[in-house]
Amino acid sequence: MLERGFTRLVPEAEALARLLALVRPLPREEELPLEAALDRVVARALRAPRDVPHYDRSAMDGYAVRAADTAGASAAGPVRLTLAERAGAGLAVPVRTGSPVPPGADAVLPVEDVERQGSRVDAQRRVRPGENLGRRGEDVRAGEAVVPEGRVLRAADLGLLRSLGIENVPAVARPRVRVVPTGEELVAPGAAPREGQTIDGNGIMLAAAVRGWGGEPEVVPLYDDDPGTLARALVEGADVADLLVTSGGTSVGERDRVVEALTGAGEVVFHGVAIQPARPVAAGRVGQVPVLCLPGFPAAAFVAAFALLRPALARLARRPAPEPRVAHGRLARKIVSTLGLRSYTRVRLEDGLVEPLRTSGAGVLSSIARADGFVITPENVEGLPEGAEVQVVLIG
Amino acid sequence: MLERGFTRLVPEAEALARLLALVRPLPREEELPLEAALDRVVARALRAPRDVPHYDRSAMDGYAVRAADTAGASAAGPVRLTLAERAGAGLAVPVRTGSPVPPGADAVLPVEDVERQGSRVDAQRRVRPGENLGRRGEDVRAGEAVVPEGRVLRAADLGLLRSLGIENVPAVARPRVRVVPTGEELVAPGAAPREGQTIDGNGIMLAAAVRGWGGEPEVVPLYDDDPGTLARALVEGADVADLLVTSGGTSVGERDRVVEALTGAGEVVFHGVAIQPARPVAAGRVGQVPVLCLPGFPAAAFVAAFALLRPALARLARRPAPEPRVAHGRLARKIVSTLGLRSYTRVRLEDGLVEPLRTSGAGVLSSIARADGFVITPENVEGLPEGAEVQVVLIG
Repeated sequence: MLERGFTRLVPEAEALARLLALVRPLPREEELPLEAALDRVVARALRAPRDVPHYDRSAMDGYAVRAADTAGASAAGPVRLTLAERAGAGLAVPVRTGSPVPPGADAVLPVEDVERQGSRVDAQRRVRPGENLGRRGEDVRAGEAVVPEGRVLRAADLGLLRSLGIENVPAVARPRVRVVPTGEELVAPGAAPREGQTIDGNGIMLAAAVRGWGGEPEVVPLYDDDPGTLARALVEGADVADLLVTSGGTSVGERDRVVEALTGAGEVVFHGVAIQPARPVAAGRVGQVPVLCLPGFPAAAFVAAFALLRPALARLARRPAPEPRVAHGRLARKIVSTLGLRSYTRVRLEDGLVEPLRTSGAGVLSSIARADGFVITPENVEGLPEGAEVQVVLIG
Repeated sequence: MLERGFTRLVPEAEALARLLALVRPLPREEELPLEAALDRVVARALRAPRDVPHYDRSAMDGYAVRAADTAGASAAGPVRLTLAERAGAGLAVPVRTGSPVPPGADAVLPVEDVERQGSRVDAQRRVRPGENLGRRGEDVRAGEAVVPEGRVLRAADLGLLRSLGIENVPAVARPRVRVVPTGEELVAPGAAPREGQTIDGNGIMLAAAVRGWGGEPEVVPLYDDDPGTLARALVEGADVADLLVTSGGTSVGERDRVVEALTGAGEVVFHGVAIQPARPVAAGRVGQVPVLCLPGFPAAAFVAAFALLRPALARLARRPAPEPRVAHGRLARKIVSTLGLRSYTRVRLEDGLVEPLRTSGAGVLSSIARADGFVITPENVEGLPEGAEVQVVLIG
């Protein structure tokens, strides 16, 4: 199906490919202390400055021994060793978990396998060479890349880096994303909207989405539909941001000026995407800065952001392509979708039952907030029957 | 299998139930501006202060008409209407998306279904009553709970709240979690560890995990094994924190003093859990503050935190129980596990192949950092063969 006024709707996959072709991974980096590095992307592989362990260490509380000395030891037939401070034939040196194993010993006899009386240490079982002993460099070798380039740092990585004495990491900068909600029907937060007016909710919604997806958002609203003003805002934004996102003014109609402005300020690479409910989406660039133009309706803006902005931002931030969380369930009611459009049906998920939300009419503002996720119907499917087993792509 | 020295290992599910029984959902709340509310828990349901839309509004650019007037209209046989400023029989009032629909009109004829010449508006198709028109209150009714209590706020919720004029939300406070790494073998970050010493990585690891799971961490290291000092630290911590987490000193052995300290300062509800590699785990309370004592080995501490701390923190923060991200794949090598223990095998996942990591010997520091996730083998399973289809619980 063709959208009125769009000469051709681009399939989502093609739109995404064209958008990603505009996005170059961000070269900007910054040095971060470990405390600020959680969930940040490592710009270059981090190498261990030393071995781990940095000495031969005991893995147990017990006695460092020569394993050969314990041959044949059992509870019934213990082998008698002598308490000592240095290792050697017939000797047992007390060690604790983590403490150095003295040269000459090659195993640790656990404390609970020993009967001790004064300086007599009776080994009640045999230990093998290397048992309960961590050799220097066994875990990590000096020079080894312990964290690869591109790793999104997790809690355990920070612990490992700290243990290795690495206190600062080179991180990919967070991409600066300028969000420009447009539309002369919009009024600023806190205002009392008159008839025909709406408080702009897209600014904070898109900013929060950008933040959650690893970007550094800045909202610069432009409650104006003049293409000249819009074009200037795009050029100005491209000077300071790594990515521009607009909302509103992308439909084909009288006041749909954002695409006109983008044509003037740079280049449009597509306009009109075969996504339901987000057909009026455009993308292009101003100079080297990619620009994604989302619809003004909040639900459509969110769906388009989820489908296109999120992967674009991941590429910009040098993060792996996002893998959405999914759940599964059974459709409580049929889903009707349109052949030729990839449909994002907002659904609630409760006890394995997937309930499509009413999204007709003006029910656009609350439908995303009420939804747990989407059931995505591909372009070549016309709908899904009640009772069908479906996958739900979870929001957030 | 029984751990040496533990009279009984508590199964993970029972340990978790006993720990959760100590945790009361946090009553403390704070008022947050929307900008600071992403991912926070709403303490009380938020109700719409007004209808949405707050007036009858057009969902399209076009003409507000009486639907009955367009009966029988088609491209071949258009119905002629007259341009007007007020609605009425045979009249068409120009409207834009979002603008008010004048009283008397009950539908909007889209601009692309109209042929217009001067004041003549030729309707080229029929519209039904209500078509392209959003009735006042159709989306949200004044007084309706638009965001339920307990909702973890997402980007779209913030957009909805802003549109409704709600600029502040009552949020559950972030639980204050005091992390106390212990052990006299530990040295502070930045120090050069001698033989027998280790830089404490558990502090930052657990703090980052707590932050990622919705808590407000504070690390107060105690590189000391004296039970009296430890007991005082627990009592002091219970004064200021909502939850205490220690690491180290939980094994049954000479220097395993944390459980002794907890016994003195409060109450121990379990000690020893049937988790591989995290058997030396204890929990209890000091006054009303729950205390979770994790092992000192980083991999064991992380596994125990993942299994026990994360759900405890969710309950404290009034968040839903965590649902781990999972992936699926085929085992590249067999997994050996011990009957009676729930085993967390660290694995890498690449192209659908699940590679168990070497975790023997001292390979405890890097094994979590190198892993993508865990394959969890239940207590009643002894191992999994190469080639088995397994679920991987992803870390982070």
